[in-house]
Amino acid sequence: LNEAQLLAWLRRSVDPTGRWIGDDAAFLPAGDGWALSVDHQIAGTHYPVDLDPATVGRRLVAVNLSDLAATGARPAYALLALAAPAGYDAQRLLAAVDAQLREVGARLVGGDLARAQPCVASLTVVGRRYPRGRWLRRDAAQPGDVLWLGGTVGESVAGRLWIERGALPRKSATGRQPRFEWPPALELELRSRRLLAPARRAILRHLAPTPQLGLSRWLALRPRAAAIDISDGLALDLHRLCRASRLGAEIDAARLPLPRSFDRLASALRQSPLELALGGGEDYVLLFALPEGQLPPPRWRSTAIGRCVRQESVVLIRDGERIPLTASGWDHFVEA
Amino acid sequence: LNEAQLLAWLRRSVDPTGRWIGDDAAFLPAGDGWALSVDHQIAGTHYPVDLDPATVGRRLVAVNLSDLAATGARPAYALLALAAPAGYDAQRLLAAVDAQLREVGARLVGGDLARAQPCVASLTVVGRRYPRGRWLRRDAAQPGDVLWLGGTVGESVAGRLWIERGALPRKSATGRQPRFEWPPALELELRSRRLLAPARRAILRHLAPTPQLGLSRWLALRPRAAAIDISDGLALDLHRLCRASRLGAEIDAARLPLPRSFDRLASALRQSPLELALGGGEDYVLLFALPEGQLPPPRWRSTAIGRCVRQESVVLIRDGERIPLTASGWDHFVEA
Repeated sequence: LNEAQLLAWLRRSVDPTGRWIGDDAAFLPAGDGWALSVDHQIAGTHYPVDLDPATVGRRLVAVNLSDLAATGARPAYALLALAAPAGYDAQRLLAAVDAQLREVGARLVGGDLARAQPCVASLTVVGRRYPRGRWLRRDAAQPGDVLWLGGTVGESVAGRLWIERGALPRKSATGRQPRFEWPPALELELRSRRLLAPARRAILRHLAPTPQLGLSRWLALRPRAAAIDISDGLALDLHRLCRASRLGAEIDAARLPLPRSFDRLASALRQSPLELALGGGEDYVLLFALPEGQLPPPRWRSTAIGRCVRQESVVLIRDGERIPLTASGWDHFVEA
Repeated sequence: LNEAQLLAWLRRSVDPTGRWIGDDAAFLPAGDGWALSVDHQIAGTHYPVDLDPATVGRRLVAVNLSDLAATGARPAYALLALAAPAGYDAQRLLAAVDAQLREVGARLVGGDLARAQPCVASLTVVGRRYPRGRWLRRDAAQPGDVLWLGGTVGESVAGRLWIERGALPRKSATGRQPRFEWPPALELELRSRRLLAPARRAILRHLAPTPQLGLSRWLALRPRAAAIDISDGLALDLHRLCRASRLGAEIDAARLPLPRSFDRLASALRQSPLELALGGGEDYVLLFALPEGQLPPPRWRSTAIGRCVRQESVVLIRDGERIPLTASGWDHFVEA
């Protein structure tokens, strides 16, 4: 069984009404206004084994906060379960988790520490509904809604590919931003192609994503909005939103927001920029649907990429051609 | 840093007021009445690698529910983070977690699945304060209070030692109770000493502990009670309760509730029964302090083992002798 099949089984057997499982966080009964989510970061699966524990801690918080952003929940509390090998600098990871949570007004309230090799960290986050806000759900889209992306896609997977090619993030003194060492040949190649800065940005985007809490709050205060975060790739996450809302979508390849210099970056990685953007994953921007005419404020830098349609299939329009889009995203449980 | 030192550092830096960290679960702000806790089960650390995934799932739920029992919280929700190797029967574990939660009226509401070797499972449990109940805290004991144990101690670690000597729990068809295979020489030895049944009970106690939710509810409805669950050994957990309440304790060795045939079982393991009872851990019974004269109903099978005293030291009284008791429990992060 892969993750999708397991979750489908779990939904049928545990939650036939679809009340709990299926959004990025679980909503506790309405009156209370709490949402909960849990996400892993595993050494060797989600990040290189020798990554600075502070960077691991910040990434762990970021991916979890992104789930709260996708559901319109204000971060409130978190609990950390950390299993780490002997000699691991758990304190550095804990301090980073604590600092990152404080930045968004949340508190670390509990945890469990144990020994394991490799390092496995899981964070449970607890969020609260915004005053006068609504939960954001995947199933709230309607035909005719405009589909938006809260930021660029494809950059995170490019960063991961550079890391796989040997870019090594190192501890930085400040702990705020990871620094890098490049294999000399790779650095020379990137420098000659003027790609050192875009590659560094891609790696930072991969290691230190920014959950879109501000945009999430704006969306939670709309009369109606559907949302999901791009964790497993635009194609798969768009399919999830469409399936939950029982509709289809048409998106325009020319409108997909890509990072600066992305064509050249993808070419240096021998990848298609469109495939990176559609299938890459771990971008942690929001994909959301709004009724036509509702425009997100410019400060959230959102881009309209298409619209929801009644027919339950997902279509990519490229150069006037209509291409059926499969859910070829990244299934953590199969490929990770 | 060991777990205790890390938690002490975390308490100082994250939670100087002691509001969040220090009990078995974290209490969210008073008006809401929620308690949260997280606990790991790691293959090779907490249980044998080839243990039936259903048994792993039930143990994972039990140790977490014990934290809710220790704080007087009624189990409500849980989230599972599971990192498992390829081919692992995750569905069997999930089904067991779900069934065990339903038995106590709680629901699995979310999760995250990923690949890792070995299997690391962490469960976050969310509990609610009982109507008209109080949270149970470690810091509520007062000098003169009677100290009680909600069940026997020492049996779980004896079970672990038998497992280390080769007793292999196997999948059972019903999934309710693990069955065993013994190395032939060990089975012969146990049979000749008439210890097969007590050893089997000890292993079941270790693998499938019973969280004391009924006793917890009774305690939560008292005017004042302090409680902790025995996860790291009576000595260490008693020290924790005393430290939190800023007092000491005197306990009577002759009154410690030990399992049937425990002297003979310990002797077959070449262990002192008293040391197993004091230092073993993972018994998951409640240690609690009640004002003198408050007697727990007989159905909870609790035993008075001593009392709280003003002087901040912990003393074991054995054969009329007063022996200072150190906190020589099991620190997960150092020894596990």
